Amino acid sequence: MPDFSLGFRKAGESLLSLLGARLSTSEYDIESHARDESFHPPAPPDAVAFPQSNEEVAGIVRICREHSVPVIPFGAGTAVEGHVQATRGGLSLDLSRMDRILDLQPDDLDCRVQAGMRRIALNDQLERHGLWLPVDPGADASIGGMAATGASGTTTVRYGTIRENVLGLTCVLADGRIVHTGGRARKSSAGYDLTKLILGSEGTLGVITELQLKLNPLPEAVSSAVCSFPDIGESVESVIEILQSGIPVARCELLDETSMQAVNAYAKLSYEPAPTMFFEFHGTPASVKEQAQQSGEIAAEHGGSDFQWTREREKRDKLWHARHHAYYAIKALRPGSYGWVSDVCVPISRLAASITATQRDVEEARLIAPILGHVGDGNFHAIFLVDPEDEDEMDRATLANKRMVERALAIGGTCTGEHGIGIGKKEALIAQHGAGVDVMRVLKKALDPDGILNPDKVLG
Amino acid sequence: MPDFSLGFRKAGESLLSLLGARLSTSEYDIESHARDESFHPPAPPDAVAFPQSNEEVAGIVRICREHSVPVIPFGAGTAVEGHVQATRGGLSLDLSRMDRILDLQPDDLDCRVQAGMRRIALNDQLERHGLWLPVDPGADASIGGMAATGASGTTTVRYGTIRENVLGLTCVLADGRIVHTGGRARKSSAGYDLTKLILGSEGTLGVITELQLKLNPLPEAVSSAVCSFPDIGESVESVIEILQSGIPVARCELLDETSMQAVNAYAKLSYEPAPTMFFEFHGTPASVKEQAQQSGEIAAEHGGSDFQWTREREKRDKLWHARHHAYYAIKALRPGSYGWVSDVCVPISRLAASITATQRDVEEARLIAPILGHVGDGNFHAIFLVDPEDEDEMDRATLANKRMVERALAIGGTCTGEHGIGIGKKEALIAQHGAGVDVMRVLKKALDPDGILNPDKVLG
Repeated sequence: MPDFSLGFRKAGESLLSLLGARLSTSEYDIESHARDESFHPPAPPDAVAFPQSNEEVAGIVRICREHSVPVIPFGAGTAVEGHVQATRGGLSLDLSRMDRILDLQPDDLDCRVQAGMRRIALNDQLERHGLWLPVDPGADASIGGMAATGASGTTTVRYGTIRENVLGLTCVLADGRIVHTGGRARKSSAGYDLTKLILGSEGTLGVITELQLKLNPLPEAVSSAVCSFPDIGESVESVIEILQSGIPVARCELLDETSMQAVNAYAKLSYEPAPTMFFEFHGTPASVKEQAQQSGEIAAEHGGSDFQWTREREKRDKLWHARHHAYYAIKALRPGSYGWVSDVCVPISRLAASITATQRDVEEARLIAPILGHVGDGNFHAIFLVDPEDEDEMDRATLANKRMVERALAIGGTCTGEHGIGIGKKEALIAQHGAGVDVMRVLKKALDPDGILNPDKVLG
Repeated sequence: MPDFSLGFRKAGESLLSLLGARLSTSEYDIESHARDESFHPPAPPDAVAFPQSNEEVAGIVRICREHSVPVIPFGAGTAVEGHVQATRGGLSLDLSRMDRILDLQPDDLDCRVQAGMRRIALNDQLERHGLWLPVDPGADASIGGMAATGASGTTTVRYGTIRENVLGLTCVLADGRIVHTGGRARKSSAGYDLTKLILGSEGTLGVITELQLKLNPLPEAVSSAVCSFPDIGESVESVIEILQSGIPVARCELLDETSMQAVNAYAKLSYEPAPTMFFEFHGTPASVKEQAQQSGEIAAEHGGSDFQWTREREKRDKLWHARHHAYYAIKALRPGSYGWVSDVCVPISRLAASITATQRDVEEARLIAPILGHVGDGNFHAIFLVDPEDEDEMDRATLANKRMVERALAIGGTCTGEHGIGIGKKEALIAQHGAGVDVMRVLKKALDPDGILNPDKVLG
């Protein structure tokens, strides 16, 4: 019998008889479930459960509710706002053993997966059917985690966020009920959209255990392009015109000056240290050629350097090399530092001003914080390279981040485009949604009256 | 002072001092707000309010709440499941005087409108900016009504339903609070998705007063095509292959044999009375040509008759003539009858079987019910031409509709793809979502504890 803490003992004993060896209190499991990838301080759970079925998840939640023990759903641990920290102890509910495709229907372009399935493993299996789930947040997140945080990423401008690609889900509510929402129909007007209510609720309204996903056919052809610009403003203007022209760009990523310097240093490349856009186009061979050419013409009108584009896989990989390695390159700018990644999303017409104002703040605060943007969505990330032990530096980074968020809210944007609230942006959520947060509290209270599901996250 | 009924008198007096002449009890207003376009029996409100601002709507709701008077939001009255019937009397809240564009940002491809704005008026104003809201349910519905029912229509296969095209909204809750949800960002991970919770809630959780909409650039070129098939199965198979090929078809509409006969009779045309597909493609001139040609090849492999396609506006209109007039043509099949329109949505691989089974039921029940389908979504409509006075016929139609819904649910589909629940499909909602309906009730109770918002709709 593990040595449970006093508050967890009764729940722990019941969980042990339900799960046996799949309830762990090993140091390794406790430590690896105490935090996500953020700089937020770790907070260890009392134990980690590894359920294998919806019914087991329901049983676990019922036990935890009976003993008022927090339940913190855990996917791949790749969140960045402290989503999985066990701030009040309790049980980390790790879904990684529920990682199978349950059903795949190529004719319907849909599949059903368990929540613990990882994105890359899913796409590996889908490839042989000529299909993919295009939502690409970068990290090899679990599908359940992506759904819980409302993940998106580089392809959102064309294919939407995870929210638009989930047709339905199975979740376990705070009282242990298993509820199936949505279905396999492409659309439905049948009642309240419970699927969308659970998506993005960060494990605070229910534990997602299965997802019905919309899939896309793999594009017949792909072309990639790279182009540097005299300044951020011109790079964003070119994307605005590309979108207004109806060119269905699949990816359009911006790396700012500092990011390009980081990439040059890291990968021994010699890109111009200027704002640089990375484009990708999907379609037929003729269409991706046309899209690249039209986009190149627009970029040239905005002072874009020679618009290099290609359809060949190897050359495409080489062109996008800098983008693919950006995160590692950025972290290598200051070895030993933490990469505190914050994101906001604004109307695209205000994107350039938002980025340059943040760059100015970062410079004035003597910080290093390269910026990457999913330009088509108006979404950008500042990666503050900080030493969490350096209080003064953390204060300066906190202030720069706060100003970035405040500017976003002032122009109708959001305090987070794709990372979620977690424990890091709760104040920003209130600043953004005011009375809406009261409504969120009413919903939380109605669905989880005892507050056992991922406490301290999203809401105060 | 109008002659208010006893239960409405106190609320009526307060409303009168708030609204003056914009509170009506005229016979015309009462009658025209007693029903939507469905066969469900009319149910007149006690009065009709015509507010002009969010604050007035809030004031109205507060008064109605104080006196426990039902509030029934009313847009254009084009719903088809009894959504606006005042089943318990009360106030019809007509938003038609809140019909302006409040903000339009062409660079950001977005705009903000009041809920009473009609779809066609909006697109007329957007056209000069090269923009449109592509969601096209057929009827000239109000944007607020479209949002409240989760409307979609012919373009959903390419552009999504209204749900994917609303970035945020303003609504008045049952306690009179004005809440702003979402924002102008293209995506957000900030808290629970209140926008999506209100969308499709049919006025039972809040009164939508404003909407922030995503817009699309008008396509540079459009091509249309028509093609008849030996049977429903082959027509659907061709669409499955078109979608699997990644052809971004903008519209693909099916008219069944009976619908084509109706069109021939109505418009004195001589189409083959066979299942017929109407396609539309959007893109560059080169792209729409390529899309039409590729689709034509696929259709030919499935026995499609000569695939006529064109890019010229006049010829396109002529090609789509039959589809444009389908509803009138169908109603003319049996003059004086009611067109009871029911819809379901199923996985596309099961669409052909669902349609043919319904056709069989209709024939066996000696009914006339032509079928139209938004094939790309797996969504189809049966238009039962009935005499509501003929009890036996209504029973037979009710049974055929019930069987259509049951079959859809048995294969993971939904009891309504785009019409909503209203008062007509509440039993079907329970059959479909079971425990999910209990969750919906919890949400309704939490947000509208006195049940004043559109009572008897969606939930029992």
